[in-house]
Amino acid sequence: MNERMKDSKPQNDAVTDARRGDSDARAAIDRALFPFMPSIYVAWSDGVLTSREIRAIRDRLRNEDWLDDASKRVLDRWLDPESPPSATALQGLLVKMREIGSALPEPQRISLVNLGLELARNGAPAGARRPDVRALQLLEDALGVVSEEAARGILGEDGVDGGAAPAIAEETSPLDALAINHILEPEHRDTRADVFALLSQKRFVVDPTWDDETYRTKVWEWCQVFASKGLGGVAYPKEYGGEGDVSKQIATFETLAYHDLSLTVKFGVQFGLFGGTVYLLGTKLHHDTYLRDIATAALPGCFAMTETGHGSNVRDLRTVARYEAATDEFVINTPDDEARKDYIGGAAMHARVAAVFAQLEVGSERHGVHAFLVPVRAASGQPMPGVRIADCGHKEGLNGVDNGRLWFDNVRIPRTNLLDRFGGVSKEGTYTSAITSPSRRFFTMLGTLVAGRISIAGAAVSAVKVGLTIAVRYAASRRQFGPEGGSEVPILSYRLVQRALLPKLAATYALHFAMKDVGRAFVSQKDEADARWVEVLAAGIKAYSSTHTVETLQACREACGGQGYMAENRFAALKADTDIFTTFEGANGVLLQLVAKGLLTDYRQQFGEIRLWSVVKLLANRAATVVTEMNPITTRRTDREHLLDAEFHVGALQFREQHLLGAAGRRLKKRIDEGMDSFEALNSVQSHVAVLANAHIERVIHESFVVALDDHEEATGTLEKLRQLFALSCIEADKGWFLESGYIDPPKSKAIRGAIEDLCEDISTSAVTLVDAFGIPESILKAPIAVRPASGKIVA
Amino acid sequence: MNERMKDSKPQNDAVTDARRGDSDARAAIDRALFPFMPSIYVAWSDGVLTSREIRAIRDRLRNEDWLDDASKRVLDRWLDPESPPSATALQGLLVKMREIGSALPEPQRISLVNLGLELARNGAPAGARRPDVRALQLLEDALGVVSEEAARGILGEDGVDGGAAPAIAEETSPLDALAINHILEPEHRDTRADVFALLSQKRFVVDPTWDDETYRTKVWEWCQVFASKGLGGVAYPKEYGGEGDVSKQIATFETLAYHDLSLTVKFGVQFGLFGGTVYLLGTKLHHDTYLRDIATAALPGCFAMTETGHGSNVRDLRTVARYEAATDEFVINTPDDEARKDYIGGAAMHARVAAVFAQLEVGSERHGVHAFLVPVRAASGQPMPGVRIADCGHKEGLNGVDNGRLWFDNVRIPRTNLLDRFGGVSKEGTYTSAITSPSRRFFTMLGTLVAGRISIAGAAVSAVKVGLTIAVRYAASRRQFGPEGGSEVPILSYRLVQRALLPKLAATYALHFAMKDVGRAFVSQKDEADARWVEVLAAGIKAYSSTHTVETLQACREACGGQGYMAENRFAALKADTDIFTTFEGANGVLLQLVAKGLLTDYRQQFGEIRLWSVVKLLANRAATVVTEMNPITTRRTDREHLLDAEFHVGALQFREQHLLGAAGRRLKKRIDEGMDSFEALNSVQSHVAVLANAHIERVIHESFVVALDDHEEATGTLEKLRQLFALSCIEADKGWFLESGYIDPPKSKAIRGAIEDLCEDISTSAVTLVDAFGIPESILKAPIAVRPASGKIVA
Repeated sequence: MNERMKDSKPQNDAVTDARRGDSDARAAIDRALFPFMPSIYVAWSDGVLTSREIRAIRDRLRNEDWLDDASKRVLDRWLDPESPPSATALQGLLVKMREIGSALPEPQRISLVNLGLELARNGAPAGARRPDVRALQLLEDALGVVSEEAARGILGEDGVDGGAAPAIAEETSPLDALAINHILEPEHRDTRADVFALLSQKRFVVDPTWDDETYRTKVWEWCQVFASKGLGGVAYPKEYGGEGDVSKQIATFETLAYHDLSLTVKFGVQFGLFGGTVYLLGTKLHHDTYLRDIATAALPGCFAMTETGHGSNVRDLRTVARYEAATDEFVINTPDDEARKDYIGGAAMHARVAAVFAQLEVGSERHGVHAFLVPVRAASGQPMPGVRIADCGHKEGLNGVDNGRLWFDNVRIPRTNLLDRFGGVSKEGTYTSAITSPSRRFFTMLGTLVAGRISIAGAAVSAVKVGLTIAVRYAASRRQFGPEGGSEVPILSYRLVQRALLPKLAATYALHFAMKDVGRAFVSQKDEADARWVEVLAAGIKAYSSTHTVETLQACREACGGQGYMAENRFAALKADTDIFTTFEGANGVLLQLVAKGLLTDYRQQFGEIRLWSVVKLLANRAATVVTEMNPITTRRTDREHLLDAEFHVGALQFREQHLLGAAGRRLKKRIDEGMDSFEALNSVQSHVAVLANAHIERVIHESFVVALDDHEEATGTLEKLRQLFALSCIEADKGWFLESGYIDPPKSKAIRGAIEDLCEDISTSAVTLVDAFGIPESILKAPIAVRPASGKIVA
Repeated sequence: MNERMKDSKPQNDAVTDARRGDSDARAAIDRALFPFMPSIYVAWSDGVLTSREIRAIRDRLRNEDWLDDASKRVLDRWLDPESPPSATALQGLLVKMREIGSALPEPQRISLVNLGLELARNGAPAGARRPDVRALQLLEDALGVVSEEAARGILGEDGVDGGAAPAIAEETSPLDALAINHILEPEHRDTRADVFALLSQKRFVVDPTWDDETYRTKVWEWCQVFASKGLGGVAYPKEYGGEGDVSKQIATFETLAYHDLSLTVKFGVQFGLFGGTVYLLGTKLHHDTYLRDIATAALPGCFAMTETGHGSNVRDLRTVARYEAATDEFVINTPDDEARKDYIGGAAMHARVAAVFAQLEVGSERHGVHAFLVPVRAASGQPMPGVRIADCGHKEGLNGVDNGRLWFDNVRIPRTNLLDRFGGVSKEGTYTSAITSPSRRFFTMLGTLVAGRISIAGAAVSAVKVGLTIAVRYAASRRQFGPEGGSEVPILSYRLVQRALLPKLAATYALHFAMKDVGRAFVSQKDEADARWVEVLAAGIKAYSSTHTVETLQACREACGGQGYMAENRFAALKADTDIFTTFEGANGVLLQLVAKGLLTDYRQQFGEIRLWSVVKLLANRAATVVTEMNPITTRRTDREHLLDAEFHVGALQFREQHLLGAAGRRLKKRIDEGMDSFEALNSVQSHVAVLANAHIERVIHESFVVALDDHEEATGTLEKLRQLFALSCIEADKGWFLESGYIDPPKSKAIRGAIEDLCEDISTSAVTLVDAFGIPESILKAPIAVRPASGKIVA
């Protein structure tokens, strides 16, 4: 018995008319009322019954001739909609019932009828008449409530069967977080640890209220710190202070992204886009002159490709670099305002040299877009003659990056400032290139963007891991609502929260493995065919991961409610900073078309197979797939074993891609045969083509997940469930298509939904382990709602 | 002929071996090459053919015995993958072809073969042998390109049939923007104009780089300006300086949201949540004491409901207000840190009084959550004794609002500071309430939130209108890519951009009309049943509109590319500010359950009909709907007339809701019958229940659109297309469900996609008119990428 009940005991024996007045805080209670108290209380407190309904109940009881007069009188008084019991009278009933109820034994289930009988037995004076069970049951039925629950509610949290709130167990997974982390990050563990250690230093603390100039200054200082540790030019050859290790460079970049995305992007611009352009498009002279200074951050640079008027259509950008044989110089010009270089990271404040992409003109000939090194700012910070610089100003995010605009007015640079690996001009003015096709030359020079796209995808995945770690930990500890009479439950036990977060968690794991595969393919590409596919993959993975990140961070923020809105909990910056990932390094819509064109080109050329780098063994399933699509039994199979089987998932995702590819090819051909030009034809099937690209990317990502688990048999438990959840979520998200195509039938579609719900429920118990496995140290995670107070560092 | 071609003319007669060396910028050209030039150029410049393929083409031509030796020699040289032509030689071909081509007549279509023949006729010396057409055709076929397009590409932008880029016509709608605006905003036009005029003043200019304190100070000054114009307390009775016009208050609030959402929210807190609580939960004493000062902003207040530990579960909040009869005071206490008031707008800086929601305790009894007026800050700005105030700090958005935290340590307030309209305590300590049911009393007191939710939905719709106006205008003017040889086209002519923006535009129109209907229902509610449905509607429309806003603003930002990321173009603030709309005034997930419970309660009570406020006439279609669901022909109808028919849409959306409602009811009942408590039962069908709620809201929103158009026969053109697009988009987004349920069959599902694509294409030509019709003055719109330079003010 709690204190409150003890206090109220002395006044409970008053047995008088409950309606004689409510001036007393304690309502008097007629003994005939005792058996009916639970139902009467529920009738009024429920708040859902209308006056009409209460009157109907009363009238019905009135007409029951087996009910004794005392009971009828009591019921008449207490069920009068014209004169309802006062709030205090109702409160009095509750206090009385709880007082008596606290002395009851604890049966597993108790109905309103039972409770009424117990109250009558325990509370009424000895020798009182036993109440009529029929009357009680009639009243309970008329109320239409869940009787047991109502009874528990009356007895309150001290009552019987209060319902223990399920906890979200944090360590039920057979694999612990560290073991999973080793599967996720087999390589560059030392590099990651070094970067984390640096970032945990006090000087790297971010203040969300910094003004733009302070933030930009900090971010550049941070870049210099990393450069001083030799982490800037890791990808460059040893003779320029690097290690020739692109993979390590990507790992460094990804790790920065757990901390601050302005730093990540600024770092990427200096060492990746700018330095990478000098390295990949330049020749020895450029390497010797610049690479070491770029790696040490002694020479801050920028990557000046995008123009205001030509964001996506790089081939048609309009800055001109005209060769002048008389002076052996190029003259760089911005023909008009639409051709200014725009959004150029580093241009507004720090960059001294720009890698400028411009149309190369020699005499009357144009040789397409080439890159030129153009000094834009003196060491003093003043713009160079002929160079105009403007600040892009405040942005949605990434305000630690100094984006700017550049105009060139007859800016002269030596001929040797052309980065001439793929196309050069002799002193006399003869253009030469080892690549005959202007188109192929253009795409080769754009190869610098491929590394950029892979890196952006890596940064996006890191950002989303931060968001998921915060949201999942919060959801596992935050309690809200609960069963009647029980304590509140963690919000992660809610289906809507599970549905919002866990498929995203699964997709993040899938993307992680796919990212690693694309990175490996990029580093180990051998010929043009490889390069071509890496380009398509990089475009696809960048588009998919950036969209995934935007959607997931939104879901995470919402799952954290008001806490998610506080800057200290990081979603503000994570969301704002990553939003532009869907646009820069290639707008996602444009990239999806690039992916689809890659697929369609192969289709046109009847290569007969989709060339893939690492999932060849899965192609063996092809024959099985064909059988699957033809087999009406498979279309209808709804047993759990089949629904969770990787073969079903691989087959379904392959079927979708192949089907969409064939349909897109046929539709395009039809339009072109009818005389439509290919631009209009492609536009007319643009939605279809985007769907195809997405289907391709999802299949590839899923197969990376399959391969990753094949390589780790110890991981087939929780991780296999994650893979199943990812695969089934992909199918469910597109179930309209699968139903349209007849690949699955309606009962199977419903069964998939059930399987997803069960997987979510199942995975929710190990969700904390699964985010801990991302291995983000508490010192980097920072969000107060997610950080563990103790020495919660899980990755050694 | 352009200047470049003229320049290059003198050197074009050199006829020598193209491979003798590339030291000269101009490659020499064999006359036998002329007819083959187009195909050879395409073979190399295409960049897609592999060396293997080029070799295959060459070998095939080599073996054709009808080809003369001169031709074979030329082809052999030019199609040698071991020694491809130099970049300059290829460029030479292009220059030559363009020179000759510029003199050609302009046929509608020209193939590579034709172009080759023309080149041979015009460029080769007189009397040269006519080339073999078969050889040309063979070569063209082997290339596998779209011949006409390749030929146009070769001839460049000066070539034939360059393809005029379609423009996005701005004024093709039969209704002009002003006429549509009058349909959208029939009421309060003067109020809106007044508010717009005020907001256009220089003192309302927002600077996105303001620090939080500056921004907060500005926003409160702005509120004072509006209060001084009598626009603060418009909803209060005349005797307190108001006009008793809730509808006008909502219109004012909505209009503020076009400008700055911090102002909107701060305004809403002061005059709506705080003032509304005093007005709706208080009695005459409170009105007399406070309302006038609240309306003039002389008494800044805040609404202290949410606690850190209890965001959504208001009923279980833990701040206590204990009545002490001896002193005739309430003593307010925060029992622990989880019970602190959190995110309270106005608490950090300006509020002097808080409307504190606390558990009312009298003696040993608890009477549930009630509102109390608690002074929290002296005029000096110092916290009152026993009150601790902390600043929530920087947030993702709305940084012009001073959110704070409040703790109470034995804070004493007079008994009369209880807002006692629905429950009071006598001097002696007797609790009285006109509402018997504690549950109903609780929800009645939460009624203040209903107006808040309607207002939030209105602000969300205003914000999304700003975003769509900017994005649609930008997309109609921004050009990127285009047909080969033609100029670039506006990005709004791309299917992906249309698909991203136009269904959102349609949904925004639908929401606009639904919003107005809910507002009218709120103002005119007559009894408890009305109030109940308004509550459900308000919850639904708030959830739907806030999610719609988040998604749409993201789509708009992405459609504007890098420009969308610049703070000056407003998406940064619009997105960050509205994100929390999905959480505050009730988290969307919780609100969806509230909606579903409202529907299920009715279902349980077998009311036999869904009570609706304004769409009664649509219920007449019920019978027809039932026929529709049973009719296999309708399930399969794919003709356009049927697909665009409102009856199909209304029927489909009703069918979905009824079907989901019945299924949810049955599933719940089954679980409860099996002994699950209702909390766990509801959680186990939570996803289903959210889908049901969404289906209900969408049906109601769509029917508002139908009714709005019924009222405006003049609008049946573009607006009817928008309605069709909204309805079909709803069905398409859930086509998996419609296919699962058998309501539509696969061919119909595909036909719906086609209809949507056509509607998008169609509406794209009047999209600018449709956003102009929102009537946002240029002075309010502000985004440089969207504002018209001239006097573009469209609403008089």
